[in-house]
Amino acid sequence: MNSKIKVAIIGSTGYGGVELIRFLQHHPQAEIVSVISSSSSGTPISEGFPHLTDIMVQDLDGVVVEEIAAKADLVFTATPSGVSTKLVPQLLDAGLKVVDLSGDFRLKDGASYEQWYKKPAAPASYLEQAVYGLAEVYGDRAAGVPFISNPGCYPTATLLGLIPALKAGLIDHRSIIIDAKSGVSGAGRGTSLMTHFAEINENFKAYKVNKHQHIPEIEQVLGDVAGEQVTVTFTTQLVPMTRGIMSTMYATMNGSYTDQDLVDLYREYYKGRPFVRVRNAGVWPATKEVTGSNYCDIGFAVDTRTNRVTIISVIDNVVKGAAGQAIQNMNLMMGWEENLGLGLTPIYP
Amino acid sequence: MNSKIKVAIIGSTGYGGVELIRFLQHHPQAEIVSVISSSSSGTPISEGFPHLTDIMVQDLDGVVVEEIAAKADLVFTATPSGVSTKLVPQLLDAGLKVVDLSGDFRLKDGASYEQWYKKPAAPASYLEQAVYGLAEVYGDRAAGVPFISNPGCYPTATLLGLIPALKAGLIDHRSIIIDAKSGVSGAGRGTSLMTHFAEINENFKAYKVNKHQHIPEIEQVLGDVAGEQVTVTFTTQLVPMTRGIMSTMYATMNGSYTDQDLVDLYREYYKGRPFVRVRNAGVWPATKEVTGSNYCDIGFAVDTRTNRVTIISVIDNVVKGAAGQAIQNMNLMMGWEENLGLGLTPIYP
Amino acid sequence: MNSKIKVAIIGSTGYGGVELIRFLQHHPQAEIVSVISSSSSGTPISEGFPHLTDIMVQDLDGVVVEEIAAKADLVFTATPSGVSTKLVPQLLDAGLKVVDLSGDFRLKDGASYEQWYKKPAAPASYLEQAVYGLAEVYGDRAAGVPFISNPGCYPTATLLGLIPALKAGLIDHRSIIIDAKSGVSGAGRGTSLMTHFAEINENFKAYKVNKHQHIPEIEQVLGDVAGEQVTVTFTTQLVPMTRGIMSTMYATMNGSYTDQDLVDLYREYYKGRPFVRVRNAGVWPATKEVTGSNYCDIGFAVDTRTNRVTIISVIDNVVKGAAGQAIQNMNLMMGWEENLGLGLTPIYP
Amino acid sequence: MNSKIKVAIIGSTGYGGVELIRFLQHHPQAEIVSVISSSSSGTPISEGFPHLTDIMVQDLDGVVVEEIAAKADLVFTATPSGVSTKLVPQLLDAGLKVVDLSGDFRLKDGASYEQWYKKPAAPASYLEQAVYGLAEVYGDRAAGVPFISNPGCYPTATLLGLIPALKAGLIDHRSIIIDAKSGVSGAGRGTSLMTHFAEINENFKAYKVNKHQHIPEIEQVLGDVAGEQVTVTFTTQLVPMTRGIMSTMYATMNGSYTDQDLVDLYREYYKGRPFVRVRNAGVWPATKEVTGSNYCDIGFAVDTRTNRVTIISVIDNVVKGAAGQAIQNMNLMMGWEENLGLGLTPIYP
Repeated sequence: MNSKIKVAIIGSTGYGGVELIRFLQHHPQAEIVSVISSSSSGTPISEGFPHLTDIMVQDLDGVVVEEIAAKADLVFTATPSGVSTKLVPQLLDAGLKVVDLSGDFRLKDGASYEQWYKKPAAPASYLEQAVYGLAEVYGDRAAGVPFISNPGCYPTATLLGLIPALKAGLIDHRSIIIDAKSGVSGAGRGTSLMTHFAEINENFKAYKVNKHQHIPEIEQVLGDVAGEQVTVTFTTQLVPMTRGIMSTMYATMNGSYTDQDLVDLYREYYKGRPFVRVRNAGVWPATKEVTGSNYCDIGFAVDTRTNRVTIISVIDNVVKGAAGQAIQNMNLMMGWEENLGLGLTPIYP
Repeated sequence: MNSKIKVAIIGSTGYGGVELIRFLQHHPQAEIVSVISSSSSGTPISEGFPHLTDIMVQDLDGVVVEEIAAKADLVFTATPSGVSTKLVPQLLDAGLKVVDLSGDFRLKDGASYEQWYKKPAAPASYLEQAVYGLAEVYGDRAAGVPFISNPGCYPTATLLGLIPALKAGLIDHRSIIIDAKSGVSGAGRGTSLMTHFAEINENFKAYKVNKHQHIPEIEQVLGDVAGEQVTVTFTTQLVPMTRGIMSTMYATMNGSYTDQDLVDLYREYYKGRPFVRVRNAGVWPATKEVTGSNYCDIGFAVDTRTNRVTIISVIDNVVKGAAGQAIQNMNLMMGWEENLGLGLTPIYP
Repeated sequence: MNSKIKVAIIGSTGYGGVELIRFLQHHPQAEIVSVISSSSSGTPISEGFPHLTDIMVQDLDGVVVEEIAAKADLVFTATPSGVSTKLVPQLLDAGLKVVDLSGDFRLKDGASYEQWYKKPAAPASYLEQAVYGLAEVYGDRAAGVPFISNPGCYPTATLLGLIPALKAGLIDHRSIIIDAKSGVSGAGRGTSLMTHFAEINENFKAYKVNKHQHIPEIEQVLGDVAGEQVTVTFTTQLVPMTRGIMSTMYATMNGSYTDQDLVDLYREYYKGRPFVRVRNAGVWPATKEVTGSNYCDIGFAVDTRTNRVTIISVIDNVVKGAAGQAIQNMNLMMGWEENLGLGLTPIYP
Repeated sequence: MNSKIKVAIIGSTGYGGVELIRFLQHHPQAEIVSVISSSSSGTPISEGFPHLTDIMVQDLDGVVVEEIAAKADLVFTATPSGVSTKLVPQLLDAGLKVVDLSGDFRLKDGASYEQWYKKPAAPASYLEQAVYGLAEVYGDRAAGVPFISNPGCYPTATLLGLIPALKAGLIDHRSIIIDAKSGVSGAGRGTSLMTHFAEINENFKAYKVNKHQHIPEIEQVLGDVAGEQVTVTFTTQLVPMTRGIMSTMYATMNGSYTDQDLVDLYREYYKGRPFVRVRNAGVWPATKEVTGSNYCDIGFAVDTRTNRVTIISVIDNVVKGAAGQAIQNMNLMMGWEENLGLGLTPIYP
């Protein structure tokens, strides 16, 4: 007798929220019992998202913890930073499993959170409890836990691109420079001049250079892998496209390696993980090649003239960088195959 | 004991071809046994389409009818007009079922084909045999037949938008004007100045005004529905986007109707058809709301000042306008549920 | 001894405002003495528009009529509808010449304004005084007048495309259907979900079908030309691009004409007008071919099967549809050559 | 009595060619006497470029050196690499002044050219004679010379961004990493899968990583400035937009400097040069802010945590990266003001 897990989605009117719905609709072991929005409760979700017409007919619920606890087993909180801080502890205390997509539980050090996010940190006990859900690296810590903090979009692309080389000692951690580019959906559905079509279209722009709140998240994980403190240079840039992140990473190599050496190393590291595709030597991935899917594709270019390696890593920021990885984490928490419900082929072109 | 149907795809290196692969990968009753390309046989399909890396590892086969017949039960021919003319009869004669995505078998009148396509028509017996696969209108003719001619992208959006009103006598067939817009993938993967990014981006342009080869296809079906000859004015225009067709249609009403009358009429007509979504009165669909899915969404705007109705119909040209409808036709031929393997939610944003 | 006219621009922080600056910078007879914004006065204009760095270094002024009157001879009011209603009479009363880019003085009938704009109309005496500045049609009324109401973007493209045929009696005014498409800059710089990049990109959508406030403006002018009341069907649609309008127009012909007949008629009608380019028979203009320029390009497709003509007219909505035509009107008011300062070649690609 | 210089443009049917026309139309001291194309001679230029309708009515001429020499004083060769190699010496020998926009005369070392361009180099005497026309750096070498080799698009953005800091010894030349991004017009008007709209739109992709032929050009100039050999890491990436280059550059600082130190240094270095705009500390330029203009805008982000500086430099690749800089070089050759005919304000949005 098969009973599905009952899931609720808080923040169903953001891009992460509707992407959770898109995948969970086809998940064989999960059933959406409540779609929740603090701002639009009481209206059908298809009013704000007409692509869900006839697919999702239920009204949006409000954020009432007891009601959620009465209906659901697990909650995805696709809420803004600062909201999860207070909400997630209540949900956990009510006995719910939680996968949190905000940045509020990624940094173990509350002081660092307050410095980069300019907001009060969550209580230390919850920060401690949160398992950082970078599935391909920490997936073994996820089984059976009640609470996962889902990685940020930039960190996901960046960390999956750097960790195997860093862990193997192939690159000098003091030399890491990350030039990251994102589609506009990463900025969310809120309106601002920065996301105005006429300002973004036919434009390429940098923002928050060296100041993005994903920097301490990247450094925390790289430091954990390297066994010592890592400090990176990190640039974030907006591309006139909706979906996709490319992280172009530079590091000096500790020795002489070829593209093929790196391909072999990464394929070995990611063996058995369904969502990392290491490209053949001399081939670099483009963002469109993972659109709509949970893949992270990685390629290399060793520069023998400077003894540096350029590592290129791409994801769909809304999927592997948010909703897809969150479902992957749910799968791992529940002890299921990690690609359950996530096997969609990228949509091309 | 369940045995899947074995399918082959000819033209696997075009956009229609890879979209067939995307859906068929998840089809519960079909198995891809051969992906075929006249130009790239012997190389892995992921070389030209890296988004299929690790998903589809087989090499492309060449176009050899006997080999196809030995492997497959059914063939999708996503081949250019003029190629299917000769190829499809051979495939049928070899005992294969065929869903043809070219325009070569849509017009019953070979002379009309030669006039609009400027190419020799297929033999009359095959033209006669072909069932025109506009599923929501002629779906009942598809069960058990060996050969379906899949409708064109513009005709699909246009016909689904016009037929219920025309059939019910609500609109005057002499008054029909169709202003159609398409994303660039409709032009195929071949390179030309017309599809050059720098020429299309930040541009909106008309082409083949009143001369598009989809005109006789639309008129043939409308004439069949109306019971007399129908002549339309038809404009085709290129939008700087990859996927999507909007057909904006104008007609004079034979009487006085409201938006709600049309909504009711269309909902009744399309009752039980999973892929047509008639929007509420006063709501018009946008192309992005069907992207990646097999839906056709329709909305209305009655203009009481002129007694005309504006009908807006949108599809994803690569899905409902090509690969998705082709699979829907396969489902109908085989007597399966028509939405088998096609239930994907649109991807948004 | 040559002294330039002193101009002020109210609404300098909108797209129309900065486009006025771009052209006026190079105008041989005009000098910008004040750039004015109600919201950002006291800050450098280049703060909100960094493309003006080092080009326009002055601070934005506030909206103070006496100060404007003390500095300037002529004012461009690139203000929203509802603001010009009150502001323009004050400017005129202070002795300033005014070219108003809002919709507040285009409709002669205040009641019609209130019906379509849902706002109180301007005083009748000012509505009466305003000369409707469709330069190629009413240019001879502009010389020496103090107040011009600049046409809307959609009406400009549409009217220039219809008037010669309507005036010559070639088309039946009861048959006119207008399918119009605009880039997103037409919606202004204000933020809303409708202009969010992720909602517009890869999307084509209709809005305000048969309800756009430019409809009565079009009908007023067509009625004036035809000598009887004209009612049109009018659809507005958003294209995923920043600049450009295409108006695709359909009408039944009163007789039998060829493309060349229309080309000849239009070339004769627009003889000597520098900004209308009538394309050769069989050639249709694309929006990109006028980008950044004050041109309106027009092409035709007679359909002998239905005896309808399709007229395609394109402009850059920010130039010929706003700032460029406003300067053209200033030139005409002042008795100068109408293309003074407006001779820029379109930017391509 | 003022007589204009007579100029011819070879390669008038490429994007660089039509952009030369756009600017030269308004140049007070130059007159276009011949527009030349090897492929389309005998047809009106407006046939392939309808935006020039009524503006440029002359037919394209063929490439006949004697005819050019008979008509013109100066030639812009906007020809592909490998063509200029042979053509430019003939033009020079015929007594013409030449500004060459190809890459054929930028590298002083023919062997290096052959290694990176995979084509035979031009004769050494011509390589020697060519003045490298990076106007803001080598402008004083241009006056009176007959032959200028116009810099590449990537090198222009990159070199203007690096040279002042490198020359002042602020950065370690061994640490330079360049992450460059370009709009698609940089690939030219030729058709290929790489420039197909459906492949580029909603995509961000890297190409020729560490292998781009602009690398030796950058290294040659940086080496000249530094006084010793410089080797850089250089990534090229395609952005889904038509125009614009951003070069994001990373270097380790030789000491402790602030953003303001760099702003001051760069403003001093570029004092009196009209086309470089150094942004205030904390402000980074976006590509759209220079579109259609000859500006190069530069901003900085010092990272005190790593003692690196991130330098961001943007240009319009077709203007400052090609046609605009070529005209700037003509101005310098002729001893005119360097911004003659180039004063256009960027077009925004």
